Amino acid sequence: MGNSFGKLFRIATWGESHGPGIGVTIDGCPPGVPIDRAEIQKDLDRRRPGQSSITTQRREGDEVEILSGVEEGRATGTPIALLVRNVDARPEAYDPLKDVYRPSHADYTYQAKYGIRTWKGGGRASARETIGRVAAGAIARRILRDACGLEVVAWVESVQDIRAAVDAARVQLVDVEKSIVRCPDESVAARMIARIEEVRKGGDSVGGVVALVARNVPPGLGEPVFDRLEADLAKAMLSLPATKGFEIGSGFGGTLLTGSEHNDAFVLQDGRVRTRTNRSGGVQGGISNGEDILLRVAFKPTATIARPQETVTTAGEATVLKARGRHDPCVLPRAVPMVEAMAALVLVDHWLRHRAQCGGAPAAAP
Amino acid sequence: MGNSFGKLFRIATWGESHGPGIGVTIDGCPPGVPIDRAEIQKDLDRRRPGQSSITTQRREGDEVEILSGVEEGRATGTPIALLVRNVDARPEAYDPLKDVYRPSHADYTYQAKYGIRTWKGGGRASARETIGRVAAGAIARRILRDACGLEVVAWVESVQDIRAAVDAARVQLVDVEKSIVRCPDESVAARMIARIEEVRKGGDSVGGVVALVARNVPPGLGEPVFDRLEADLAKAMLSLPATKGFEIGSGFGGTLLTGSEHNDAFVLQDGRVRTRTNRSGGVQGGISNGEDILLRVAFKPTATIARPQETVTTAGEATVLKARGRHDPCVLPRAVPMVEAMAALVLVDHWLRHRAQCGGAPAAAP
Amino acid sequence: MGNSFGKLFRIATWGESHGPGIGVTIDGCPPGVPIDRAEIQKDLDRRRPGQSSITTQRREGDEVEILSGVEEGRATGTPIALLVRNVDARPEAYDPLKDVYRPSHADYTYQAKYGIRTWKGGGRASARETIGRVAAGAIARRILRDACGLEVVAWVESVQDIRAAVDAARVQLVDVEKSIVRCPDESVAARMIARIEEVRKGGDSVGGVVALVARNVPPGLGEPVFDRLEADLAKAMLSLPATKGFEIGSGFGGTLLTGSEHNDAFVLQDGRVRTRTNRSGGVQGGISNGEDILLRVAFKPTATIARPQETVTTAGEATVLKARGRHDPCVLPRAVPMVEAMAALVLVDHWLRHRAQCGGAPAAAP
Amino acid sequence: MGNSFGKLFRIATWGESHGPGIGVTIDGCPPGVPIDRAEIQKDLDRRRPGQSSITTQRREGDEVEILSGVEEGRATGTPIALLVRNVDARPEAYDPLKDVYRPSHADYTYQAKYGIRTWKGGGRASARETIGRVAAGAIARRILRDACGLEVVAWVESVQDIRAAVDAARVQLVDVEKSIVRCPDESVAARMIARIEEVRKGGDSVGGVVALVARNVPPGLGEPVFDRLEADLAKAMLSLPATKGFEIGSGFGGTLLTGSEHNDAFVLQDGRVRTRTNRSGGVQGGISNGEDILLRVAFKPTATIARPQETVTTAGEATVLKARGRHDPCVLPRAVPMVEAMAALVLVDHWLRHRAQCGGAPAAAP
Repeated sequence: MGNSFGKLFRIATWGESHGPGIGVTIDGCPPGVPIDRAEIQKDLDRRRPGQSSITTQRREGDEVEILSGVEEGRATGTPIALLVRNVDARPEAYDPLKDVYRPSHADYTYQAKYGIRTWKGGGRASARETIGRVAAGAIARRILRDACGLEVVAWVESVQDIRAAVDAARVQLVDVEKSIVRCPDESVAARMIARIEEVRKGGDSVGGVVALVARNVPPGLGEPVFDRLEADLAKAMLSLPATKGFEIGSGFGGTLLTGSEHNDAFVLQDGRVRTRTNRSGGVQGGISNGEDILLRVAFKPTATIARPQETVTTAGEATVLKARGRHDPCVLPRAVPMVEAMAALVLVDHWLRHRAQCGGAPAAAP
Repeated sequence: MGNSFGKLFRIATWGESHGPGIGVTIDGCPPGVPIDRAEIQKDLDRRRPGQSSITTQRREGDEVEILSGVEEGRATGTPIALLVRNVDARPEAYDPLKDVYRPSHADYTYQAKYGIRTWKGGGRASARETIGRVAAGAIARRILRDACGLEVVAWVESVQDIRAAVDAARVQLVDVEKSIVRCPDESVAARMIARIEEVRKGGDSVGGVVALVARNVPPGLGEPVFDRLEADLAKAMLSLPATKGFEIGSGFGGTLLTGSEHNDAFVLQDGRVRTRTNRSGGVQGGISNGEDILLRVAFKPTATIARPQETVTTAGEATVLKARGRHDPCVLPRAVPMVEAMAALVLVDHWLRHRAQCGGAPAAAP
Repeated sequence: MGNSFGKLFRIATWGESHGPGIGVTIDGCPPGVPIDRAEIQKDLDRRRPGQSSITTQRREGDEVEILSGVEEGRATGTPIALLVRNVDARPEAYDPLKDVYRPSHADYTYQAKYGIRTWKGGGRASARETIGRVAAGAIARRILRDACGLEVVAWVESVQDIRAAVDAARVQLVDVEKSIVRCPDESVAARMIARIEEVRKGGDSVGGVVALVARNVPPGLGEPVFDRLEADLAKAMLSLPATKGFEIGSGFGGTLLTGSEHNDAFVLQDGRVRTRTNRSGGVQGGISNGEDILLRVAFKPTATIARPQETVTTAGEATVLKARGRHDPCVLPRAVPMVEAMAALVLVDHWLRHRAQCGGAPAAAP
Repeated sequence: MGNSFGKLFRIATWGESHGPGIGVTIDGCPPGVPIDRAEIQKDLDRRRPGQSSITTQRREGDEVEILSGVEEGRATGTPIALLVRNVDARPEAYDPLKDVYRPSHADYTYQAKYGIRTWKGGGRASARETIGRVAAGAIARRILRDACGLEVVAWVESVQDIRAAVDAARVQLVDVEKSIVRCPDESVAARMIARIEEVRKGGDSVGGVVALVARNVPPGLGEPVFDRLEADLAKAMLSLPATKGFEIGSGFGGTLLTGSEHNDAFVLQDGRVRTRTNRSGGVQGGISNGEDILLRVAFKPTATIARPQETVTTAGEATVLKARGRHDPCVLPRAVPMVEAMAALVLVDHWLRHRAQCGGAPAAAP
């Protein structure tokens, strides 16, 4: 039941890392939206393995095929099905893993839950599953951009303790894409890359934080009380593999302030109600207030490492695992388009929900 | 659409802070579950205002009435409707707020979204809405306890920079309830209380962090890929008023480690697969692994403060707001039962989902 | 799980016939909609028992209380909770039924499913549950009328073999309400009433058919492929107690025609695409085409009769049941507002769904 | 939003008749269920065009590919994606239809709703969409058969006025498959075939009724109050193309009886509670009672006919349409596996829902 997301712009993903392919179906896309295969492929290329020296060297073209829902380049309003065939599946590389639970992977929990698992690669728990999310997210972003100029930009804010200073109000996709680590702060990016290469050589891995800004968000997105915008964003982000934390606006740091320090004073600016500060992160009472949405997502270090690890076999015997294979020493550069996609999927869903209940595109209050 | 939560143990809340009442309906409760009004009331009493010197002095008995779904003390399997009448509603106290947007409240965003709002009190955005969650959570906790001894315990881990050290593996409800601030670390609790009283005198407010542990969680709860257990927990927590962040297991701190430091080695213990450490926080690949679930939730300082604040009127004019009324200088003590309730609601929902798909109560893998 | 209906105009009902009360919550009502207690009560009065000599003589005022979601007579966009207290509950009248399964009632199946049942009255299976539907339906009808002049009118088409001829294109509520049996064909109505009184005297009951027309339906309501308009209407009608059949347009009679006889030729009329005939019943390919929606619902004879009936006890022994109590010899007059309510609920839900996906109120194609 | 069906055994279909392919995803299949490609293909072969002289002569092999969710022949509990490539797509045959609305087809309503349509073939409204349903239904049937010996059998009960007499308690699949019209009453089948051939020669089409029985249904399936078993079955059937009516048990005919004639007396038989008659059609109060489920579905005559028909162009001009192409003169023989699939999908969904809420496979009451 857990393989779909969204209420009105509803995506459902399927597929395993070493099966025939991976896909997604989108139900609820507004008719007439331009669906451009190249635009979708562009985001997939930012996600795919093998794109740089600091990502996994698995080679997957990840070419997307549009199977339905499009007529002469436009959405028809019926389900859009997208398929990416798996190409570089070397299941035999996983033979040694058939009977061993890899630490901090999903091997044990899938076996415990289902009594059966696809032990070749990560199976359903593989990050390849996010192909469908990124593809659907590309369409979501297009809708939001065309509707109200809304844009989402994410970047790598930190790798371990190496932390960038980025101006969220101004950072652009092109700034992010300048470095292979997807950190727009150039000197910090160089240090991040050096760190990643260092831990890779040591057979180890690192994690970090991805930050995201959404700009030109109309006021009114989000629904009381369970489907608050930040609640849906939190769920979206924590549904990505390897995530351990989420913050919106002031986040955990905000707990150190007093109310008088933390509150965002309302001011009038160009006839619009604005806030002088933005500790709220663009959301108040679960609903967007028109300010930039600011959020951060914690990614743990990649679970697959080359060093020997203590574990147990499926038969219940202690053993030592020494993984081989081609893996990311740091998932963050490839996580950036995933975080953007999930944010866009949440925003477009609430944009449609607003249109349903309130009868028109969201607009600023008088 | 956003006022219900859960798929199989589905709750829907309704009501405003200054209307006739607040309520919740639970659809999907297993038949035969003991439904004890006193047990529900006990959790409501931990949530209600006026319970101690550091909470709001509003007086609400918050007496719950069971309207349906129960026969001779047991759930019939049909919807359980619970009602709490509002008693201490002094709507006239809010007259000065009719035309002003309170900073960092939901006044502006509700107006922007709906073009209409209940300006008496927080309306739907009031924390009174959580009455329904806590009442339903009491039933969820009972089911989990009876089914597998699962227990959830939350406590105040920090108020501003004052931070407690608590043994999550052993802390009990009785330890938490010893202090009015609901921090089981006695000396730290005293300092927290002093801080809260100090900021209240200054007309200000503070925030902090609530931590939660769930023990005796069977392996197998949570569903790939969007309804990962941590994703649903994150949504649950961020749907509570005043929340700004969520962590599971190692959280943001985990991003500082390497993979070899972070991975939880599997070991055999008493014939069960266990992990030597628990940086995963009890969840791997989105599914519980049988270890304790550990999470933390950041609450911002209360938005309502007595100090004058810069804001704008609904007519679009700058003004200064000086709030009166009876409010919490710190929401954390009353947030503890809310966090417990939301965790229990997520866990019971996934417990039922497991039972549906996998055909029996979750059990440990061999 | 089965106690809610609709996706965007979502209602959830709760309550048993002999418990404290019956209620409904509406989530998703557009903000600003006028919510008039008197308007809701008017439909409830058409549904309530004791309204005429041919309905049950149970006396229930069925006074509705609005508990939330309304500010100064208008919907706020948050959940609207409605409550009707049970008044004329004489549970002791049901004591003889505690240990007996009434034939063609839900006693046995509830016991078989849940292992527990509210044996006083029909419990959850009582037609009193439809109070919530009719109340919510009154709001749905108001929205549809204000939005596009859409109106739904239902009437009793047949009682047993006594069948009325009614002009669906013109029949009005006032015509229906002229007779206590709610059949607008006066002479036939008199015969229906006579039949009902006759079977009541004989301790028996009768069924019949309710017909409904929806006029001024905009083209475009309904969604391929599972949520076809007729599919959702069929579900809505078959979810009413005592229903055994559903037809849209030509129905079962249409199976006797050839395609050339059955097809509805398209013609232009006043610049609009119309159909010359309407065997489709206003729906083609699951989507409304702008013609009148025409449907029929079969209601079986009331299961409660005064005659002795063969049955078994809960202990598994054969027995003879002789029911007492005050029951409808024919449910049809009171079913008319229920059928209208369910049709309105389906239509308003699809109206909002259209607005979400297609970005505006439905309009005729060029 | 309308392209998925079921709550716990959730299927989502996608695809157009003349696009790259047609598919379905199943989310919620219990792990361990045998997934046999040949078993699925067998039901698809009963549905495919070109299988006999009285169906359309379009040639489609409809070979199914399993893309995910299966490991060594068993379901893993993750989504099962199935794909059928379109082969015999001759879109150029549809060129004359680009600018014309075919009477009683979905051309006009899709255009009115979405402002865009796939005019090649039926697009999304084509009966090819049911491939996904039949494939998923084959898996549902397997689960039900293995779980409790539950079996569903459907047959053609009538073609126009030619009506078969079939013993629902005993009819088997093999009896149905004996004749190309799928009517187990041999002499009547011959007359039906003659009628279909006759109308085809005349360039016309016919409709009729498909009947279905489900045997070995455990008591307890179905949920009050909106998701009654008959309500979900009605929706399932009316979501099939060309359907106009639904009956369960006594149906419309039951409205002619009195309550004393219609009620099903309870009796004890072999220690089980049974009913002497089965006018309820196996469902009471929305929940299965263990007796055979009996239902009937009305299919209108095929809309595509060879005779000239009055219609309008998309430009709003009157015209005469003379269709060519290869179409079914009667959809009923191919509708039989569709009706079976939809019934199985409803039943397996409620079987899982029962398991979730009531904690075990449904069993007979004492």
